[in-house]
Amino acid sequence: MSEGVERQIIGVVGSIGPELQDELEVMDGVSEVLRISKPYKLSAREFHPEDTVVSIGEAGVKIGGGEFCVFAGPCAIEDEEQLVSTAKAVQAAGAKVLRGGAFKPRTSPYSFRGMGEDGLKLMATARAETGMPVITEVMSERDVELVERYSDVIQVGARNMQNFALLDQVGKTRKPVMVKRGFSATYEDWLLAAEYVMAGGNEDVILCERGVRTFETFTRNTMDINAMPVIKRLSHLPIVADPSHATGKWYLVSPVACASVAAGADGLIIEVHPNPDTAMSDGAQSLTFENFAALMQQSEAIRAVVTPHATSS
Amino acid sequence: MSEGVERQIIGVVGSIGPELQDELEVMDGVSEVLRISKPYKLSAREFHPEDTVVSIGEAGVKIGGGEFCVFAGPCAIEDEEQLVSTAKAVQAAGAKVLRGGAFKPRTSPYSFRGMGEDGLKLMATARAETGMPVITEVMSERDVELVERYSDVIQVGARNMQNFALLDQVGKTRKPVMVKRGFSATYEDWLLAAEYVMAGGNEDVILCERGVRTFETFTRNTMDINAMPVIKRLSHLPIVADPSHATGKWYLVSPVACASVAAGADGLIIEVHPNPDTAMSDGAQSLTFENFAALMQQSEAIRAVVTPHATSS
Amino acid sequence: MSEGVERQIIGVVGSIGPELQDELEVMDGVSEVLRISKPYKLSAREFHPEDTVVSIGEAGVKIGGGEFCVFAGPCAIEDEEQLVSTAKAVQAAGAKVLRGGAFKPRTSPYSFRGMGEDGLKLMATARAETGMPVITEVMSERDVELVERYSDVIQVGARNMQNFALLDQVGKTRKPVMVKRGFSATYEDWLLAAEYVMAGGNEDVILCERGVRTFETFTRNTMDINAMPVIKRLSHLPIVADPSHATGKWYLVSPVACASVAAGADGLIIEVHPNPDTAMSDGAQSLTFENFAALMQQSEAIRAVVTPHATSS
Amino acid sequence: MSEGVERQIIGVVGSIGPELQDELEVMDGVSEVLRISKPYKLSAREFHPEDTVVSIGEAGVKIGGGEFCVFAGPCAIEDEEQLVSTAKAVQAAGAKVLRGGAFKPRTSPYSFRGMGEDGLKLMATARAETGMPVITEVMSERDVELVERYSDVIQVGARNMQNFALLDQVGKTRKPVMVKRGFSATYEDWLLAAEYVMAGGNEDVILCERGVRTFETFTRNTMDINAMPVIKRLSHLPIVADPSHATGKWYLVSPVACASVAAGADGLIIEVHPNPDTAMSDGAQSLTFENFAALMQQSEAIRAVVTPHATSS
Repeated sequence: MSEGVERQIIGVVGSIGPELQDELEVMDGVSEVLRISKPYKLSAREFHPEDTVVSIGEAGVKIGGGEFCVFAGPCAIEDEEQLVSTAKAVQAAGAKVLRGGAFKPRTSPYSFRGMGEDGLKLMATARAETGMPVITEVMSERDVELVERYSDVIQVGARNMQNFALLDQVGKTRKPVMVKRGFSATYEDWLLAAEYVMAGGNEDVILCERGVRTFETFTRNTMDINAMPVIKRLSHLPIVADPSHATGKWYLVSPVACASVAAGADGLIIEVHPNPDTAMSDGAQSLTFENFAALMQQSEAIRAVVTPHATSS
Repeated sequence: MSEGVERQIIGVVGSIGPELQDELEVMDGVSEVLRISKPYKLSAREFHPEDTVVSIGEAGVKIGGGEFCVFAGPCAIEDEEQLVSTAKAVQAAGAKVLRGGAFKPRTSPYSFRGMGEDGLKLMATARAETGMPVITEVMSERDVELVERYSDVIQVGARNMQNFALLDQVGKTRKPVMVKRGFSATYEDWLLAAEYVMAGGNEDVILCERGVRTFETFTRNTMDINAMPVIKRLSHLPIVADPSHATGKWYLVSPVACASVAAGADGLIIEVHPNPDTAMSDGAQSLTFENFAALMQQSEAIRAVVTPHATSS
Repeated sequence: MSEGVERQIIGVVGSIGPELQDELEVMDGVSEVLRISKPYKLSAREFHPEDTVVSIGEAGVKIGGGEFCVFAGPCAIEDEEQLVSTAKAVQAAGAKVLRGGAFKPRTSPYSFRGMGEDGLKLMATARAETGMPVITEVMSERDVELVERYSDVIQVGARNMQNFALLDQVGKTRKPVMVKRGFSATYEDWLLAAEYVMAGGNEDVILCERGVRTFETFTRNTMDINAMPVIKRLSHLPIVADPSHATGKWYLVSPVACASVAAGADGLIIEVHPNPDTAMSDGAQSLTFENFAALMQQSEAIRAVVTPHATSS
Repeated sequence: MSEGVERQIIGVVGSIGPELQDELEVMDGVSEVLRISKPYKLSAREFHPEDTVVSIGEAGVKIGGGEFCVFAGPCAIEDEEQLVSTAKAVQAAGAKVLRGGAFKPRTSPYSFRGMGEDGLKLMATARAETGMPVITEVMSERDVELVERYSDVIQVGARNMQNFALLDQVGKTRKPVMVKRGFSATYEDWLLAAEYVMAGGNEDVILCERGVRTFETFTRNTMDINAMPVIKRLSHLPIVADPSHATGKWYLVSPVACASVAAGADGLIIEVHPNPDTAMSDGAQSLTFENFAALMQQSEAIRAVVTPHATSS
């Protein structure tokens, strides 16, 4: 307890979530409640100073702790030819993990919602042909087991970042989980979402910044570039940037991808399509094979410049 | 096709979602794509000019089309005594539906997450004792059947507004569904979430504005009061305001509740607790029985003044 | 100084602005800096518990402390006929102060920017004919003296809320000042803007909430209805709501005006035009005489219901 | 005029600002108004395809069109020793223009507000000793002439981005003007602010992205990294990034500065202080000489990688 001139400060010891804070705040005689310690523990660098390195797939692709990893592929899986040709092209350019959507979150119920299990099978085919591990999104608790079976990384999308039932469920799997940041999730909300997965027993979490929602509508979202060094400081988990969703326009993807690498991202996740003009989903923000290959070269060169940033005092 | 001096306008007929818009936008020679018709159909007033009136429970409590309905009760269900005493108190003050949380969305995995099915049973007890229909939130696809069995209205929370698997699922139930607006969902996103439920076959949807996330952090969220007359114009569905979550502080609840009624809300959903200081969840924003009763009187008097607003030209 | 298990708390006494807070925060060994006392003093209710009542013009029109006041008139002054006819109509309906823009802030340099001093002269004419005091915006330090001469209240617009040179200048006048909230100003920023005026020696400040900028683009801005009870609690200054700018569409103005009164606003500022379809500025959000008169009746009836809100514990 | 099934499209020719758009939108029978052409002309790349190169000071330092320029120096000018030593240090590291604040915008009226003309004189001294041109902010219309006399670039701060009287005034000067983006200004608002300056006759405008205000409060602002490639596409004007204000914490400055260069910025503006811990303003976000020098090397190396980005199709 500290006595001030106008006020008195009372220290409260123990674990305090945002809700208890609110409740104390409206009690009689309480002017304000200020939280001293962080509500997330397992994901906090404070209690785990070394970087976490996540190992992906049988090939053991690494991300975090100085290991850089690019995830690339089509937004939606359309057919074997599209997926396998893209896998080979991105692999040749340096990508290490194949991304592809079998279950697609669509704002409208009338849009194409993905191939489902048939898409997952095509992912398995592409992995067999290239040796690349694969990542795909899971949108339903009922599909977690299925996706865990087929995919090397399980992705939780931005819209499900606070679907706590889904987070609990993927926390019980034995595959790495990529947690995308919600449209208006604070750093704390986001780390608490990771905490849900980790508290379930799965500590192989990769964070993904995919842009936040602001007043600016020219771009689909606003890439929060500050997130790269902030998350590195607050957490030991690897962080990946998704410039495809953070911008929504292909001609912004490469500059913003380079920026993310320069800011310290441990990886990128990029939409690539053999022919963006005919893509069934998100063609507007997909790179061609040529543009992706050029980006990979720039990104490699930038990494050489910025590793490591002196972001911790 | 219209010829302008600097540009040419090409009209495209058919159903266009946000994604197709983006894809057309980056094609060669295309400067901008402007959508003329709305992507939601079933929820649009354009195709359904009369207000939808939703009927709740065996008692047939009505909301919409001039029928006003207050949902009130504790944030989290704690025990029979707490729930039943609150039910009786809010019923006496004029509330028509009992709210109570059995499954609680908590930002931190370490917070109290609700009583689960035991809580649902207490809701049934309270309904039996008072005759009031009940509303409770469902957070997991796996619990939809259970919640449908016990509850008269199924609530989808803000964090799950774009949990499309859950929306699909509740769209197959035969109970009215309350869809809360996501933290940063546009009116269009929100109506498309309602569209998911309606496209599944369940047209008894109630919208709930519970505040959006802005740069202002003094309040938990910012109530979007504009939403009341906007939604009335864009949609035929009833809209309810949740001043408890939109403010986060009990002393702001009554003024903002009155404001919502004055702006044309078809109902309110309010957190009430016998003893807010000891509540297990959201005590900070819960009203006492006395404050709730006073609010009900004000709200009734305001409704008499503003019904109906001349909001359609 | 308080010893905790993981951390030590050091209390710092004295006046600390946001900048010093930032500076302490990055010092070695400092994890976080939490401010205990508020940076605004003159505008804080803490040090001035009773409501301020501002007196306007020779007629001594009052606002604050239970006195309600409506400011109404055209967005831009166009000619004598338009201004005087509007003045008479709004006065007959119950408005007490005439608003009108002589200097118009326009996003584009190519839009109509107001009649300037000729407009101020028309304001004086309208005042002479009706006895109503007048309010108009000042956009330039060079015009402060001129506007002070002609106008009974000096308005500082949202875009100039942090134009500190202008705030200093109006702080030296002897006329009440209305400070509109900036598009993305926090409550604290806003009260500090008022503080600038008051620190200059002019304590007759009226705050005006005119909507904040959010991700929602259907409406021009988002009315922050929470601001009414929040400002009443934090400050003793009167607060007025501007539903015309906060919505941008005439059909939303009346519902949102009623909501603002229900939430505890001390007044309204409303755009009214004899013929909104031909207005030179902001016709889209102007009410006709008939709609304004109807609103005044509703607003009076709502005030009777909600005075006073029990917003202080 | 185009006939659709449900609607009819009417093309309107001529110059339409946001206000006319709103007015058309609420007319009877009008469902929506969509603007086809941009409201800014002088600043638009559409009508001026080649990059503008701005020349600064007698030395003719260039920015834009492939010329990169770093502005560096203390937030606030404190004394000759501080300013001159910083000037020499940043010049040695590669900065080309000296920044320093003589007039400081402070949220609170009680904070240090700068040395005023004495500060400008010290800027002149530092220029004489180093040959570096200087940039400083002007906050008052009354100071424009004074600042024009002493400074080689006139800076308009974020809070004054829509202080139209000030924009008009600096448009009449013969010195380059840096227009910082407002906290919640859209790209269009920002380009229209530049348009004000250009319409006044001064076409030497440099844009500066300094972060926007979002719901995230851990950082002072959120750097909008998308702005670099977006502005390059919409406008021919040079764009500079200010990572000091966009982050508010020194340990985030270098990563975000590198990101900005990687995204295509034509320059950086960085706060540097001999001893950040004792700075009178913004010490928290100031770099030491050593950190600045290290950043300059990284930034140069990144420029070599990314010039030019293929951002135009």
